[in-house]
Amino acid sequence: MHAVTPHALVPGLAPDAVSERFARAAWTAIAEPGDRFAGLVVQLIGATPALSALIKKIDGAGLRQIVVDSGGDELAADDLSADNLQSAIDRWAPRVKSPDVVVALSQAARYETTLLVPGDPQWPGGFDDLGPHAPIAVWVRGNLSTLATLQSSIALVGARAATGYGEHVTMEASAGLVDRGYTIVSGAAYGIDGMAHRAALASSGQTIAFLAGGVDRFYPSGHDALLTRIVEKGAVISELPCGSSPTKWRFLQRNRLIAASSLATIVLEAGWRSGSLNTAGHASALGRPLGAVPGPVTSAASAGCHRLIREYDATCVTNTDQMAELAPLGDGTALWPGDPDPAGSASSPTSDMVRVIDALSTRAPRASHDIAARAGLSVAAVRAVLGALELEGTVAERERGWLRKNAT
Amino acid sequence: MHAVTPHALVPGLAPDAVSERFARAAWTAIAEPGDRFAGLVVQLIGATPALSALIKKIDGAGLRQIVVDSGGDELAADDLSADNLQSAIDRWAPRVKSPDVVVALSQAARYETTLLVPGDPQWPGGFDDLGPHAPIAVWVRGNLSTLATLQSSIALVGARAATGYGEHVTMEASAGLVDRGYTIVSGAAYGIDGMAHRAALASSGQTIAFLAGGVDRFYPSGHDALLTRIVEKGAVISELPCGSSPTKWRFLQRNRLIAASSLATIVLEAGWRSGSLNTAGHASALGRPLGAVPGPVTSAASAGCHRLIREYDATCVTNTDQMAELAPLGDGTALWPGDPDPAGSASSPTSDMVRVIDALSTRAPRASHDIAARAGLSVAAVRAVLGALELEGTVAERERGWLRKNAT
Repeated sequence: MHAVTPHALVPGLAPDAVSERFARAAWTAIAEPGDRFAGLVVQLIGATPALSALIKKIDGAGLRQIVVDSGGDELAADDLSADNLQSAIDRWAPRVKSPDVVVALSQAARYETTLLVPGDPQWPGGFDDLGPHAPIAVWVRGNLSTLATLQSSIALVGARAATGYGEHVTMEASAGLVDRGYTIVSGAAYGIDGMAHRAALASSGQTIAFLAGGVDRFYPSGHDALLTRIVEKGAVISELPCGSSPTKWRFLQRNRLIAASSLATIVLEAGWRSGSLNTAGHASALGRPLGAVPGPVTSAASAGCHRLIREYDATCVTNTDQMAELAPLGDGTALWPGDPDPAGSASSPTSDMVRVIDALSTRAPRASHDIAARAGLSVAAVRAVLGALELEGTVAERERGWLRKNAT
Repeated sequence: MHAVTPHALVPGLAPDAVSERFARAAWTAIAEPGDRFAGLVVQLIGATPALSALIKKIDGAGLRQIVVDSGGDELAADDLSADNLQSAIDRWAPRVKSPDVVVALSQAARYETTLLVPGDPQWPGGFDDLGPHAPIAVWVRGNLSTLATLQSSIALVGARAATGYGEHVTMEASAGLVDRGYTIVSGAAYGIDGMAHRAALASSGQTIAFLAGGVDRFYPSGHDALLTRIVEKGAVISELPCGSSPTKWRFLQRNRLIAASSLATIVLEAGWRSGSLNTAGHASALGRPLGAVPGPVTSAASAGCHRLIREYDATCVTNTDQMAELAPLGDGTALWPGDPDPAGSASSPTSDMVRVIDALSTRAPRASHDIAARAGLSVAAVRAVLGALELEGTVAERERGWLRKNAT
């Protein structure tokens, strides 16, 4: 297992082997989640050299030179101007000397927290679709084995101010999806999120909570018992090191991890300005299927769901079958929809195939020009892919167009 | 006024002048609504020669010869094979000698019923989009002037088995649309339809009911008082002559008239198999905007609406503004969306413009290739039309694509 617990990262214990891992841990305390410049610099020159440059107080021009010398991708390096890098260094520097990093590591050890970095077997593959916005590392409490089930996970999110209707619908959805083998991802907030986790646990299912602050301090505090149970049965994840408080920004960035780590996102109940619409926006931007559960038009608590259906092309989902349809579990090798062409799987669908399959419905037949528009492919490419998929038995042609067959 | 009351059609009163009109009246008693062969023959050779051929017991081959001699459109004539025509004659013949026609005319006179035929100024223009399935004539009780307001009408339909929620939503929709100047079209059934008419009347609005049987016998009988009020304030229309009972087939055909006569159709509450989904299907087939109001997913009474949103691309509408958006009332010269190029209105949008406008949303910006796919036009044609519409101020370009501006 590549993942190590943080006490193995404390200086004095074989620092050479763990320097990159330690540096990434430090970066989670230095850069705010989603800091694109931190992501790019760490990606281009490595976390250790980047941290080392910061400690040596190298300026923006100097850091840019290091990036250029490392042969970093030209386009990215272009964006990494000396000025941009100097602004970033000005943001990061105040945190380098603070005791936060050390506190974070000792707290992490105390709470049996595991650090995961890209390349670790449990690293959620969906994160990679975030590009330079991907987390540099994440902190996990609970069962690392649960993270593998993110490959068959659905995010159930919604407003804190939930109604009885929303909670009922969420309970049914979470329990029903758990029964179908899905892991439930959510944000542990009051209302819909909490119900999603609770119902998953009640059905003995896997559930994963993403927090906007450190995993040592549960937020909201009223969900202390719930989060303790999630740690026991599933996992609690944060991009922030122990000791970090949640902020508005961190909540928004946390939402991108919920969307990126799951196969699909479903909004169960949300008002017109609910924060869960932000998660929906991330899912949509990542090309992940997005579903929304309608409710009474007389209920302001459902206005956000209706908005997603009307304005953001969210699929109207009314029961568990329709939710599962958004993220079909095929032969157990479910992929994040954004995975371009996974290695070691000769028979996995190509990128075009995935896009065509995503553009198809299992119920409403669609003409090839419609599929082409939805998939963003040429009609000719769509026809070629449909031919191949028909041979495979994945799709079928009907009088009114093409249908995706249900996964068997 | 071209429309005449049926007593003017009784034989003996200037038969030459009214023979075509009389023949059409007779055809409404001879052919079932939507009989494509009746529609084609009457269209190609005229109602009087067609009726005359029937009375003379001319056979299928003979009737085909008459059609060919009249220079009827070749393609249509091809379809009108001697065999097909003989089958049709076999259907029609039993009704030619029946007293139904005479009874229908005398009943019509008694109930102050007006016969309308294509070309009459009050003839609903939307009917023409039905092609050979257009009614040969319709019978009207009430105020003929109301029929002109079909140019700014919305059909509000739904299930007989309505819930309190559905009735509430329908009441709000009908009253709100009346306030915005729309005429409310519906089918006078129990439940949603009845509430749509009632709320329109309560708001002193125009409302029109389409019946599946004769306008002399109100159906359902429990809506006798309601239909009497609709006759007083609006109009009641049927394709069937007086004395006809409603049948399953006639309900389905009546639905096509509701969809064709209105600018848009909205389903307010409908179960999975509600007959109102048939009206929705007609609206969709005619290219009319289709809206559906979502409801609780826990209510079987809303399952049909959710089905329309999921499978038939109905727009999710949650308030009166969104409903009105489906059929914007512009400068008072609203058109049936299918009107190809109305005469006498130099500034009215061309067919392509109507299709492009229909393909736009006032909220979700759309790229031109998306609009092209929705409108069934080439991208180049869409770009040209968008340019013209932008000059007019009807559309606007945003970062993510084109928006339709709200009618002012």
